[in-house]
Amino acid sequence: MTGKALLPELWTEILVPVCAVVGIAFSLFQWYIVSGVKLTADRGASSESEDGKNGNEDYLIEEEEGVNDESVVAKCAEIQTAISEGATSFLFTEYKYVGVFMVLFAAIIFLFLGSVQGFSTKSQPCTYDKTRTCKPALATAVFSTISFVLGAVTSVLSGFLGMKIATYANARTTLEARRGVGKAFIVAFRSGAVMGFLLAANGLLVLYITINLFKIYYGDDWEGLFESITGYGLGGSSMALFGRVGGGIYTKAADVGADLVGKVERNIPEDDPRNPAVIADNVGDNVGDIAGMGSDLFGSYAESSCAALVVASISSFGINHDFTAMLFPLLISSVGILVCLITTLYATDISEIKAVKEIEPAPVQDVADSCRTGAATNVIFGLALGYKSVIIPIFAIAVSIFVSFSFAAMYGVAVAALGMLSTIATGLAIDAYGPISDNAGGIAEMAGMSHRIRERTDALDAAGNTTAAIGKGFAIGSAALVSLALFGAFVSRAGVQTVDVLTPKVVIGLLVGAMLPYWFSAMTMKSVGSAALKMVEEVRRQFNTIPGLMEGTAKPDYATCVKISTDASIKEMIPPGCLVMLTPLIVGFFFGVETLSGVLAGSLVSGVQIAISASNTGGAWDNAKKYIEAGASEHARSLGPKGSEPHKAAVIGDTIGDPLKDTSGPSLNILIKLMAVESLVFAPFFATHGGFLFRIFS
Amino acid sequence: MTGKALLPELWTEILVPVCAVVGIAFSLFQWYIVSGVKLTADRGASSESEDGKNGNEDYLIEEEEGVNDESVVAKCAEIQTAISEGATSFLFTEYKYVGVFMVLFAAIIFLFLGSVQGFSTKSQPCTYDKTRTCKPALATAVFSTISFVLGAVTSVLSGFLGMKIATYANARTTLEARRGVGKAFIVAFRSGAVMGFLLAANGLLVLYITINLFKIYYGDDWEGLFESITGYGLGGSSMALFGRVGGGIYTKAADVGADLVGKVERNIPEDDPRNPAVIADNVGDNVGDIAGMGSDLFGSYAESSCAALVVASISSFGINHDFTAMLFPLLISSVGILVCLITTLYATDISEIKAVKEIEPAPVQDVADSCRTGAATNVIFGLALGYKSVIIPIFAIAVSIFVSFSFAAMYGVAVAALGMLSTIATGLAIDAYGPISDNAGGIAEMAGMSHRIRERTDALDAAGNTTAAIGKGFAIGSAALVSLALFGAFVSRAGVQTVDVLTPKVVIGLLVGAMLPYWFSAMTMKSVGSAALKMVEEVRRQFNTIPGLMEGTAKPDYATCVKISTDASIKEMIPPGCLVMLTPLIVGFFFGVETLSGVLAGSLVSGVQIAISASNTGGAWDNAKKYIEAGASEHARSLGPKGSEPHKAAVIGDTIGDPLKDTSGPSLNILIKLMAVESLVFAPFFATHGGFLFRIFS
Repeated sequence: MTGKALLPELWTEILVPVCAVVGIAFSLFQWYIVSGVKLTADRGASSESEDGKNGNEDYLIEEEEGVNDESVVAKCAEIQTAISEGATSFLFTEYKYVGVFMVLFAAIIFLFLGSVQGFSTKSQPCTYDKTRTCKPALATAVFSTISFVLGAVTSVLSGFLGMKIATYANARTTLEARRGVGKAFIVAFRSGAVMGFLLAANGLLVLYITINLFKIYYGDDWEGLFESITGYGLGGSSMALFGRVGGGIYTKAADVGADLVGKVERNIPEDDPRNPAVIADNVGDNVGDIAGMGSDLFGSYAESSCAALVVASISSFGINHDFTAMLFPLLISSVGILVCLITTLYATDISEIKAVKEIEPAPVQDVADSCRTGAATNVIFGLALGYKSVIIPIFAIAVSIFVSFSFAAMYGVAVAALGMLSTIATGLAIDAYGPISDNAGGIAEMAGMSHRIRERTDALDAAGNTTAAIGKGFAIGSAALVSLALFGAFVSRAGVQTVDVLTPKVVIGLLVGAMLPYWFSAMTMKSVGSAALKMVEEVRRQFNTIPGLMEGTAKPDYATCVKISTDASIKEMIPPGCLVMLTPLIVGFFFGVETLSGVLAGSLVSGVQIAISASNTGGAWDNAKKYIEAGASEHARSLGPKGSEPHKAAVIGDTIGDPLKDTSGPSLNILIKLMAVESLVFAPFFATHGGFLFRIFS
Repeated sequence: MTGKALLPELWTEILVPVCAVVGIAFSLFQWYIVSGVKLTADRGASSESEDGKNGNEDYLIEEEEGVNDESVVAKCAEIQTAISEGATSFLFTEYKYVGVFMVLFAAIIFLFLGSVQGFSTKSQPCTYDKTRTCKPALATAVFSTISFVLGAVTSVLSGFLGMKIATYANARTTLEARRGVGKAFIVAFRSGAVMGFLLAANGLLVLYITINLFKIYYGDDWEGLFESITGYGLGGSSMALFGRVGGGIYTKAADVGADLVGKVERNIPEDDPRNPAVIADNVGDNVGDIAGMGSDLFGSYAESSCAALVVASISSFGINHDFTAMLFPLLISSVGILVCLITTLYATDISEIKAVKEIEPAPVQDVADSCRTGAATNVIFGLALGYKSVIIPIFAIAVSIFVSFSFAAMYGVAVAALGMLSTIATGLAIDAYGPISDNAGGIAEMAGMSHRIRERTDALDAAGNTTAAIGKGFAIGSAALVSLALFGAFVSRAGVQTVDVLTPKVVIGLLVGAMLPYWFSAMTMKSVGSAALKMVEEVRRQFNTIPGLMEGTAKPDYATCVKISTDASIKEMIPPGCLVMLTPLIVGFFFGVETLSGVLAGSLVSGVQIAISASNTGGAWDNAKKYIEAGASEHARSLGPKGSEPHKAAVIGDTIGDPLKDTSGPSLNILIKLMAVESLVFAPFFATHGGFLFRIFS
């Protein structure tokens, strides 16, 4: 790069951390506002409660309906504490197991990468420019291990804080829902924003600091520096895998189990406090939909940053040592935080939502219609709709890849992914307010509050489903781009010249890679099924053996259900986790980099399709059920009411969709990215020691 | 090739047609034996009925139970005629539309291939060896068109004859079932063998004659000769597509429609003559499961032969003009016919089956068990099982590809596929006896025969499901190998050097290609759903408006239901048909051969997975239902009887599985092969005129 840099290096060094700090500060400010909603029984609960401010007089529904306000608030607080404790306890158990994995895998990284040059401490010629001298492979091993651990810890922290904020917000959203759907939305959205900003800013800051610290050692060996930094992506993403899978199994086992006995067999409403699995269900929403999603999106963000950085480091930016150009990926994220900040201010403080109106697209009506002829046609139409929903996103992804590649090859692809993820703070807020509202509704139900509260939170939850569907599309699309960029970096780092589909090593890799998402989905779906069956048995047992449970005179044993979900999810997350983490190692070591390239390409092109269709099929069934339950139109009422045959068929579809849209679908994102980033981290090892099996036979 | 040929050319020229003629003769002989079962009311119905021969005294169930024998036989004959007429009428309607397509597409082939050298009649330097002179592109255009038409006609003939034989055998199997399950099996299996041998021998003979006739013109230009011959594969396969899709929609619309109203709403047994859709359902089994499958397997056979021939023609066999080596693919098929002949004699004449015992594998029991908690868990477990069932076949395919490629590159892959398909005659017999027995049971039900007949044919049907599942595995595995070989031939013919996954043109092709099976499945599943909904309405209308229908005093209007299925399937088969047929043309012309290579690879690796999982998921649900209904073990009885809640859940799963296992799943095989063979036929055109869009912009 011969021209003058757009930004002097000093400005870059200042701008990035400043944006990160601003993001964190804004997040804390939002938290402060949310904390203004007091979980004690005084009126004027909100800290900004100037009722006349927006020109409409709010009143508390409870007062109007004569329900005792004080006991309701106390009950909400009590339930919130129970959920928060359950979630914390689960996450600590999960982190204990994941911590063991982290230590083991850190050792593997160190040993494998260190072995590349036989643990030599001497500097070596650089990989891409043999005339220059680079730091030894042992240094890459040490620093990759460090950045792996940093990424993992940041990811765990992101998930944990997200869960803490969400449980903090649940009951507060319930209380605000008494004052209107708009107020409830703002609390839920603000809480989502706390999580979003904390996560985005934190991820950026840790990465920035790490780069600057590593730079002290690496000096002008940027190739080695950014190669080590990819460990950050691997760490973030592997924790995300366990978070998503474990959390996903937890939440869906509890959900399916609670629904099958409570709603279907005992005919009691959702979230009824008599249902023994109800606390587990609500805990699950927080550990799966919130903590799992937080880790997941942090993983995406870390990986796409690493992909862009590593590609840049081996391009002209890296060779010419233009630090601002090099840190362009971080600058994108920094500016993204500022943009999100303005958007959030607008959404929470400038405009105010008065009512939520769900627009039901025609496809959902079609699926709902098919419930007339029973569950079978509902499932057939839902599956077909999910398959069909793949078409447009795939064309969109194909166009993005082609255009971004045409502009700047693999770097273009990586930056395109980062562009999609730069608004992660708002994206997370949008994804999170639905589950928060859903849980708020659960608390309202359990606390015995007016059904009108539930209607309001349900409306927010339904709207959240739609916005979250957009968020999922973003997550999947960006995952495809990130994986491709990481894949490109891996091929370049592993010294593969072409990945020719017509060579047998690549073609068998492609086939097996395309199979992996099916294997993974089979594992996770079966896990949810088995865990749900255990839950069903326990819930049935409690209904049958605890006298007075159905009458509401005796309390169910919530703790046993929480324990079943916890044990099942911890046990069941290990096999799919191993599948994803071990495949690149096994394939790379035994079959070599060509086959591994095939596996990465195959799992990418096949996994994207299953992820999109699973998410949308599940979403369509969920919304078809909600559509019938809401009965907002003549058409919808003709299918209802709750308990009618079409509604029963819709409930079956919704239950099937649960593991698809909340467990296996979202985990597939992680599968394709994680295998790519892992291959990239281990690329030097595979390039040196890979293809063991083929070398034996030839 | 310098050594002495293993077989002199003359022997090859004699062996191939002799084997084909022997196959046809054997097929006619089997038909003659089946025709010995008379559809008239005398005793000793079978021509080979020496009751004491096998040492056991058979008796007719009807006599024992005092049902009038004469009226029963007459009724069977009457029903058989109705089914046969319905099937013939549908196939003629289908062929009318398909005929129009055939003419149009023949014109496209001629024009596109003729335009390669501007319709010049001058000879040109050969593609692979520029020092020699080859026939002009116009000749390839003419002969490709001819072989396309020949392939199409042979395919149509195969399907039609298969259907004729199956309908001929249905009632005869019913009558023989009175004398024992073994006798029924032999009739059903013999009829399947008629179809299998006729099809295999016919396909071989037509191909052999075509090659020899074309050779008169082409002389020693084997490159051009075998390039033209690939049209045969395209013709066979494109007819198979319409046969599979049209027949699949027909049969499943009728089946789902009949079940949803008859079994679920009206609580009458399957195949009850009061059900207006019952004739359509039985017609559907013959046009979908039999005619569609016949066309499909013929297509596979034709394509794998063409793939092997075209690869051979551009290899040393072709260059050295060793005709025996060149015709090795046909020799494999010839010997395959002889091997199948011996096997069939053993199965029908030497051993005799006394009883059919279905072995229920553990996975089916798991799925059946999950019905305890309702349809939702049944569907989740079934989907998971289908996903899981992909793992082993994919590893097996990967190993076959690697090994066969290591021995003889793409030719090895083609010959491996041909090896799998060389036993097609027996394969078809195994696939066909299940549906024939199923229909025989339907006829028994409609004719009001003893329920014990139905039990026997059901046992055969269930056993047929298991053997057909193996057949499906073969079909999918061979399809993967065939497609890969055709793909390899295409790349070589189109002059593509490497299909590098890391170039944007290839990667977008891969992504879009992997999406196509989803698009295609969405279309076919939605079509089945919509057609079934129409059928449901009509059946309901008839039950509601025809007085005395439920009491059995009035006859339903079968013809309207037949018409609904016919119209729906003809209309609905066009969009998926166009998707498959037009994609290679559009991609090749606008985006060029690299992107088309990506599309072929993507659809191959993704389509195989969906085809396997869809077939096995559907099969598992079907067998779980049968397992509960049969109640053969303590465990199975605890889930039953018919009408219990677990059984209802199993029926829902079975209904969902119908379009998966009988419409979209099997059609995906054709999708991946057809796109590959079409690309190969049009390769010269794409190589000259392809990539229009990229050429404009660059």
